[in-house]
Amino acid sequence: MADMKGRHVLGLDKFFKPESVAVIGASNNPLKGGYMVIRNLLKFDYKGKIYPVNPREREILGLKSYPSVKSIPESVDLAFVIVPREIVPGVIQECADKGIKCIIVSSAGFKESGEEGSQLENKIVEIAKKENIRVIGPNTIGLINSSNNLILSFAPFEFIRKGPVAIIAQSGVFCGAALHWLLSSKIIGISKSVGLGNKCDVTEVEMLEYLGDDEETEIIFLHTEGLKDGRKFLRIAREVSKKKPLIVMKFGRTSIGAKAIVSHTGTIAGKDTIFATVLKQIGALRVDDLDELRDLVKILLGSRLISGNRVAIITYSGATGAQTSDLCIEAGLLIPELDEATILKIEDKCPPWMKISNPIDIWPAAMQHGADKIYDEVIRAISSDPNVDVIIVLVCVSYADHQKPSPQTLLNAISQIEKPSVVCTIGTSADIEKYQEILEGNRIPVFTSVKSCVEAISRLWQYSKFRLELTTTQFF
Amino acid sequence: MADMKGRHVLGLDKFFKPESVAVIGASNNPLKGGYMVIRNLLKFDYKGKIYPVNPREREILGLKSYPSVKSIPESVDLAFVIVPREIVPGVIQECADKGIKCIIVSSAGFKESGEEGSQLENKIVEIAKKENIRVIGPNTIGLINSSNNLILSFAPFEFIRKGPVAIIAQSGVFCGAALHWLLSSKIIGISKSVGLGNKCDVTEVEMLEYLGDDEETEIIFLHTEGLKDGRKFLRIAREVSKKKPLIVMKFGRTSIGAKAIVSHTGTIAGKDTIFATVLKQIGALRVDDLDELRDLVKILLGSRLISGNRVAIITYSGATGAQTSDLCIEAGLLIPELDEATILKIEDKCPPWMKISNPIDIWPAAMQHGADKIYDEVIRAISSDPNVDVIIVLVCVSYADHQKPSPQTLLNAISQIEKPSVVCTIGTSADIEKYQEILEGNRIPVFTSVKSCVEAISRLWQYSKFRLELTTTQFF
Repeated sequence: MADMKGRHVLGLDKFFKPESVAVIGASNNPLKGGYMVIRNLLKFDYKGKIYPVNPREREILGLKSYPSVKSIPESVDLAFVIVPREIVPGVIQECADKGIKCIIVSSAGFKESGEEGSQLENKIVEIAKKENIRVIGPNTIGLINSSNNLILSFAPFEFIRKGPVAIIAQSGVFCGAALHWLLSSKIIGISKSVGLGNKCDVTEVEMLEYLGDDEETEIIFLHTEGLKDGRKFLRIAREVSKKKPLIVMKFGRTSIGAKAIVSHTGTIAGKDTIFATVLKQIGALRVDDLDELRDLVKILLGSRLISGNRVAIITYSGATGAQTSDLCIEAGLLIPELDEATILKIEDKCPPWMKISNPIDIWPAAMQHGADKIYDEVIRAISSDPNVDVIIVLVCVSYADHQKPSPQTLLNAISQIEKPSVVCTIGTSADIEKYQEILEGNRIPVFTSVKSCVEAISRLWQYSKFRLELTTTQFF
Repeated sequence: MADMKGRHVLGLDKFFKPESVAVIGASNNPLKGGYMVIRNLLKFDYKGKIYPVNPREREILGLKSYPSVKSIPESVDLAFVIVPREIVPGVIQECADKGIKCIIVSSAGFKESGEEGSQLENKIVEIAKKENIRVIGPNTIGLINSSNNLILSFAPFEFIRKGPVAIIAQSGVFCGAALHWLLSSKIIGISKSVGLGNKCDVTEVEMLEYLGDDEETEIIFLHTEGLKDGRKFLRIAREVSKKKPLIVMKFGRTSIGAKAIVSHTGTIAGKDTIFATVLKQIGALRVDDLDELRDLVKILLGSRLISGNRVAIITYSGATGAQTSDLCIEAGLLIPELDEATILKIEDKCPPWMKISNPIDIWPAAMQHGADKIYDEVIRAISSDPNVDVIIVLVCVSYADHQKPSPQTLLNAISQIEKPSVVCTIGTSADIEKYQEILEGNRIPVFTSVKSCVEAISRLWQYSKFRLELTTTQFF
């Protein structure tokens, strides 16, 4: 077993931390994937050695090009293969002869494309088994390790923010889309990202185990189209969820969706009802869209775990306070009464006719004392309220400057308190980006939709409860 | 009855089409609401006469200021009152004496603020009844009629796009937020917008009847916190829904939400279960968040009615095709087989191993012939497919230019076909805005989330079915 584990998980390390990479099918033609792979490695300043392989070129983007893998004078840790499918098996054998143990096959046209492709894919697997080689793909977008600037993909990347989120995706396009979507929130950075494609060898279960132990990864997002070994997934995913949040996206729930998946990566989706039950048991969080993924990651990064589901709502708009209350209650969250001490701290700022309750409609107080002062004081007052586990701060951004707190005011107040707090903007204005930049840049999540904000808190609570129950079980 | 209707609905015309407006409480202090009201009227170039009223000023923003309404030398159609609550009843009486029949009371501190405010509000109602005056408010943000540039509000507006969407909102902040949020989509323009505040006189039911007959309004959004006359609402709203989509947002469903509403506009929310049933009966569409509102308005404006719920999905990403299929089926939409003729039109562009089905994964064909050519041809091929009612065009925007169709390609193809089509972008990039500008500027909706896109189509189908069933009933 130790050997097997060694082969399976430790064997993946060189995929992310190679000291040298050969790109077989490297190209000088900007329209070819083999061009972009080299361009990405150079653009992001990958620290290891890069060996372009292409018999028709002497130089690619300023690097010496080799006619074959064999002709590379030094040893190579990792090969990235992007050549026509017919010659892939031969290339794999050459890599084996060169002593390369990790290969990413980016080329497409294998199991996803019918009988002929399936036979070619089987050949890859045969050679890999015989030669004790690990293969990611075929039909994959590639992988990223932000810590050593290894951006190994034919997809054009302009910008990667380093951070604690890892992506494991089966679909290449989806992997890229998820990555770009996550990076659009300033709170989110990426540790590692990998597209698994047809999974002829390396599976998501192994990758999950590897990233579960990865110190640079705090949150894992897994997109899968169908698991090969459900039982092992259950065991590993539960172990991972105990340490870090695991977010799962899986389609093929309906017969039409399942059919679409077969024609795309040749995977059978499996029974969704069983999968859904399994996910809950293991503490994993399911999302159905990239929006949901981004919102959930934002709140996991910003608020970490919460110790209960009691929400305080600070609002400048009574209607939005009512809206947020309804959506919270319907999502299984609570809107508690505020503690007497909290009310005492706030009440001298409010007109005497105003009843202070939760949601706290601060409009009358802000009219009198200014939005900055009131948001600041109310956030601080609630921070020590024992009835409250998490604070939603609603800001009407469409309004005039004196009617809304500055991003800096919110940053100062929220970053100086212990209680997890999120900001939700109402309406829209050119200012929204400023709020996101200043607040999300400091790990305070900013939502632009009340519904998404509440859904994210509800999911955060779902995961927090799973972790809390683990702790309780351990102690009793 | 004719008289009553006359008083109630025709009496509202002067609110939106006054030839002259007095602003009582106009100010030269940029921090005061009474400054912004005059500034908005001037900035948007309101065509009627403007009379600022403030006894302490001789001129406001270049306009002569009058010490009182009485001192205005000509007749006045509409008064906007933004003075301390104590003097509001006196001002109303002065307006009555001047012969003004329409008054907007923007000042706050009435029924929403307790007993003293309630008594002041009762005084307003007394005078209005006695003098046969219509009052909007108190506690309102004001109103907008884009066709005559009447932007009558203390909230700062920088930009209004003219168009067919009307807003009726009880909450002022919410009214402004909804307006800004809708305007953030280039497909959406505003005909009229009104905040009703405490509804001491003019109600949403009357406003609904008025806008139901308004030729400039094609879609109505109503935010209400509680209806005073449910039976009349049911009747009017059903009549309106037969002509144009009515979108409703209402909170106070939970006891906490209901409590928040009382303290905010003094309205009792009422039983939500009854309200929800009523809404369905009358063909109205309910939304819970501004995101949902914007998405629904986009698709209503872009696609108008659809004749069935059969969706064709064009995708560059197999995974997203499966995702979209699952979400469609779960939302009550269908993914039909394509007609034989459609497949014949497409198949020579695709590699022979590729099975053409719905969703149509055009990636292999686009790789060979270019994304522009393939998106164009596939959209046109499906346009005459008798099995399909609506097309979702998925575009991976994160990708390289040759892997995605240009916005212009999509515009040409979609605007030349009859079948309703929407675009949904996957991932993110600086280009998204270009797609939105070019496509939404031409009434083709662009979504940035698959889930939102599918939800919007499902709601469009809900309304289309209501209208189709009306037609069927009429014929048989």
